[in-house]
Amino acid sequence: MRLSLDDTIIAPATVPGSGAIALIRVSGPKAFEFTDAVVRFRKGNAASSEGYSIHFGTVFTQNGRELDDVLVSIFRAPHSYTGEDCTEISCHASRYITGEIIRLFIDAGARYAEPGEFTRRAFTAGKMDLAQAEAVADLIAAGTEAAHRAAFMQLRGGFSSELRQMRSELVELVSLLELELDFSEEDVEFADRGRLNALLDSLRAHVAGLTDSFRLGNAIRNGVPAAIVGAANTGKSTLLNALIGEDRAIVSDIAGTTRDTVEDTVNIGGILFRFIDTAGIRDTSDVIEKLGIERTFKRISEAEIILAVLDADSDEHKISEECREVLRHISIPSQKLVFLLNKADIADKNRYNKNVIAINKIVLSIENQIKVFTISAKTGQGLPELKKHLSDMESQLISDTDATFVTNFRHYQALGAAALSLDEAAAALASGEPTDLVAELLRAALSHLGSITGDITTDEILETIFSKFCVGK
Amino acid sequence: MRLSLDDTIIAPATVPGSGAIALIRVSGPKAFEFTDAVVRFRKGNAASSEGYSIHFGTVFTQNGRELDDVLVSIFRAPHSYTGEDCTEISCHASRYITGEIIRLFIDAGARYAEPGEFTRRAFTAGKMDLAQAEAVADLIAAGTEAAHRAAFMQLRGGFSSELRQMRSELVELVSLLELELDFSEEDVEFADRGRLNALLDSLRAHVAGLTDSFRLGNAIRNGVPAAIVGAANTGKSTLLNALIGEDRAIVSDIAGTTRDTVEDTVNIGGILFRFIDTAGIRDTSDVIEKLGIERTFKRISEAEIILAVLDADSDEHKISEECREVLRHISIPSQKLVFLLNKADIADKNRYNKNVIAINKIVLSIENQIKVFTISAKTGQGLPELKKHLSDMESQLISDTDATFVTNFRHYQALGAAALSLDEAAAALASGEPTDLVAELLRAALSHLGSITGDITTDEILETIFSKFCVGK
Repeated sequence: MRLSLDDTIIAPATVPGSGAIALIRVSGPKAFEFTDAVVRFRKGNAASSEGYSIHFGTVFTQNGRELDDVLVSIFRAPHSYTGEDCTEISCHASRYITGEIIRLFIDAGARYAEPGEFTRRAFTAGKMDLAQAEAVADLIAAGTEAAHRAAFMQLRGGFSSELRQMRSELVELVSLLELELDFSEEDVEFADRGRLNALLDSLRAHVAGLTDSFRLGNAIRNGVPAAIVGAANTGKSTLLNALIGEDRAIVSDIAGTTRDTVEDTVNIGGILFRFIDTAGIRDTSDVIEKLGIERTFKRISEAEIILAVLDADSDEHKISEECREVLRHISIPSQKLVFLLNKADIADKNRYNKNVIAINKIVLSIENQIKVFTISAKTGQGLPELKKHLSDMESQLISDTDATFVTNFRHYQALGAAALSLDEAAAALASGEPTDLVAELLRAALSHLGSITGDITTDEILETIFSKFCVGK
Repeated sequence: MRLSLDDTIIAPATVPGSGAIALIRVSGPKAFEFTDAVVRFRKGNAASSEGYSIHFGTVFTQNGRELDDVLVSIFRAPHSYTGEDCTEISCHASRYITGEIIRLFIDAGARYAEPGEFTRRAFTAGKMDLAQAEAVADLIAAGTEAAHRAAFMQLRGGFSSELRQMRSELVELVSLLELELDFSEEDVEFADRGRLNALLDSLRAHVAGLTDSFRLGNAIRNGVPAAIVGAANTGKSTLLNALIGEDRAIVSDIAGTTRDTVEDTVNIGGILFRFIDTAGIRDTSDVIEKLGIERTFKRISEAEIILAVLDADSDEHKISEECREVLRHISIPSQKLVFLLNKADIADKNRYNKNVIAINKIVLSIENQIKVFTISAKTGQGLPELKKHLSDMESQLISDTDATFVTNFRHYQALGAAALSLDEAAAALASGEPTDLVAELLRAALSHLGSITGDITTDEILETIFSKFCVGK
C-alpha cells in the first residue's frame, strides 16, 4: 500500500478506554488548517501559533452543540515527532468524545492513520532509521529493566551506529576492489591483500558477535528460557506456580505476556524469565507419554537455564540416577544447571542428608560450577535464594556496559545473511577467485546490513514492519 | 480520609496499557520543583517556564541510565485543571516507563493521588462545584449523544445555575420569615403571605420538575428500559439478540455496560436503550416459574417501553388473550407499548391476517396510540422500522432544548428531600404553624439543595463521591 505524505493523518495516541485524558494526534501539511476548522480557540488559532505552545479551545459538533473543551499542543515542522506540522488534541478520555472529534477531522479532510504511520513518517523524514523505528515498538512493550535498556539503546542509535561503521568499512573494501577492477586489464593488484583480509576478518568477527548476541537479546525481550525438569511428582508444577504466583501481578503488567498452561514469564530483579514446566522424565512404553518426554528433551536443549527438580525424600540411588539422566541431556557450559532438592519441609532428615551427599558427589565430578539448593516449592523455603541466584546468573543482561544486543528477529536474519556473504567473500578471496565475484559478495553483505537500518528497503518491508505497530504510534 | 492540599500529587492521566503516548499528571505546590528534580530539560526548567508551554527533556533512572525522552507541559496556578501549579509529562506509553517515572517523583517527595483527587482539588479551588465535578465522571462514561449532552450541560453548570436560582429564592423566603421572627414580640406580620405562598409554590413546582426529570435522566445515562414480554416461545430472546447483535460492537464501546444473560444496552440513533428479556408469561403451577413470571411483571412495571411479542402463526383467540394479559399489567400512558407480530416469515398467511385484525380491534378499543409492527426477529424483517420508532419515541432525550435532566441518584435523593421539606413548609404555612418552624423547614430544604452543588458538604460526602473516580482524574 502506498501511503501518501500529502495526506494529513489523525489517530488517538493514547490507549482507548475511559480515563482522565485522551490525546489525539494530527500530522501532515494541513494539520493546522484542519485543527482550526475543528477547534474554536479562545484566542488566536493553530496556524499562527508558535511551536511548543498549548492553547485552550472548544470543539463543537456539526449541529453546533458543545462537544468538549480541549487543550491543543502545537508542533511545527521539523520540530515534531513526524517532522511534519503536528497538533495534539487533549480531551476528556471518553470514546464518544474522541470518536466524534476524529470524525470532525475526517469530515474536514484528514485521513485515519494506518498502524505505525506516524513513526513511518518520522522514518521517511529522516528523524530515525528503521532499526530505531522498530525500537519504538520494543520500548513500549518492554516490561523489564533489561528489555527497556536494550530497546532504549537501539532507539538512541547505538546499534545503528555500529551498523553504519561496518557498512563504511565494507564500502572501503568494495572500493579498493573496484579500483583494482577498473584497472584489471593492466593486471595490477592495487589492493593490499593483507589489509583486505584483515578488514574482512574484523568485519566477520563483528557480525558474528552481533549474531551471537541474539540469544541473549531474545532472552531479554521474550524472557530467559528456564526449563523445569525432573521425574514425575517431584513438584515441578508447584515450583512453576510458586515462582510465578508471587509475582503474578507484575506479570500481568507486561503487555503481550503469553500465558499458557505450561509456561509463564516473571520479572526477577529486572530480568524477564520464562519458566517452562515439562513432562516428568521416566522410562515409559506409553506412546503419548514418550512424545511428551521427547518434547521435554527439546525444551531442555533450547533452555538457557535448567532447573532440575529432585524429591529430597526419595531414595539416594534414584536421585543419583535422575541427576545423571539430566546431565546426559544438557550441554554445559552453554546451559546453566541448578539442582533443586525439593520437598525439604517433609523429607526424612536421614534420607535428605544422604541425597545431598549423592548429588554433590555427582556435581563435583563435573568441571563446572553447578549450584544445589534445598527448597520447598510448597512452603516457599529456599525460593528467595534461588531467585537471587537466577538473577545473578543473568546479571550481564542489565549490566551497565554499552554492549549491543540484537533483539529483533528481522535484524538477526539480515545479520545471518550478511555473515554468509562475508564468509563466501573470504573463501573466494582465499582461493583466488576473480575480484568482481568478491566485490559482488561484499555488495550483497552491504545490502543485507543496509536493510536493517532501512538504507536499503522496499515498500513491502516497510509495510510489514509498521503494520505491527499500534494505530497512533 | 483527610487529603492534605500541601501534598504534591501524581498519577497517570491516560488509560494504562501499551500505546503511543502516556500522560502523567503532577499537581501541587511543588509540582515544578519535583519536575525539575526528575526531568533534565534541554533548555531552562519547569520553575521558570511560562504557563501553556511545552518543553523537551530526558528522564534518567537513579543509577543515571536514560529512561525516556519526554515532553513536559507547564500549567501555572490558577490556570490549570486543579487551579494549582501543574505539569503533564508525556512519555512513551509503556507501563515500565510510566511506573519508573512515577517512582522517581515519589522518591522526590510527591504522593500517589487518590481516585478523583485532581478533580477534588479543582472543586476545592472553586474551579467547579460538586455537581459539575460529578459531571466529569458522567462525561467520560457517556457513550451516546444523549448521555453526552446531559453530562456536558451539567459540566457547563446548567443544572448548577438552576440550583443557585432556587437557593437564592429560598434564601429570600427565609429572610422574609426571619425578619418577621425578629419582630415577633410586636405581633407584626411583615411577610406578605400571598407572596410567600406564590414563591413557595413556584419553588415546589421547580423541584418537582427536576425530580420528575430523573426518570428520563436515568434513562439517558443507563439506557431507556424496554421490557421484551410475551408468552413462551414467541421469540423474545431471538428479538433481544437481533436488537443487540447488530450493534454489539458499539455496545462494547461503552464503558461499564452491564452484560448479563437477560439484558443488554444498545445505542439506537444516539439514545441508549436497555432491552430486558423476561420470562414467558403463562399460567403455571411450577413455583420457580411463578417466581420468574412475578419478576417479569416487576420488570414490566419499571420499564419505559414494553415490547409485547406475539407469534403471528398462533391462534387468533390465543393472540387476543395475550394482548389483554399484557394490557392488564401496564400503565398507559406513562408506559409506551409496542405490539410485535413476530415470525412473520413463517406464519400462515390466513392466520397472520386474522391476527392483525384481532390485535387492531383490541388496540383501537384503547384511547392511546399503540403501534403494531410485523417483524421477523430471525430474518431481521421489520426491525429497522421498529428501531426508528423506538428512537422517535424517545427523541426528546436528544432534542436540542435546554431542559435539564437529573441523571445522578445522589442529586435525585437530595431533590426528593428538599421537596419533602418544602411540602411540609407549605403545609405549616397553610395551617398557621409558628413562623420559626416554617423557617426551619425552609432552611432544611436550602441545605438539601446546597448539598448537590457542594455549598454544604462534609468530608465524608466528598470521599464517597470522588472515590468513584478513576485515579488521575
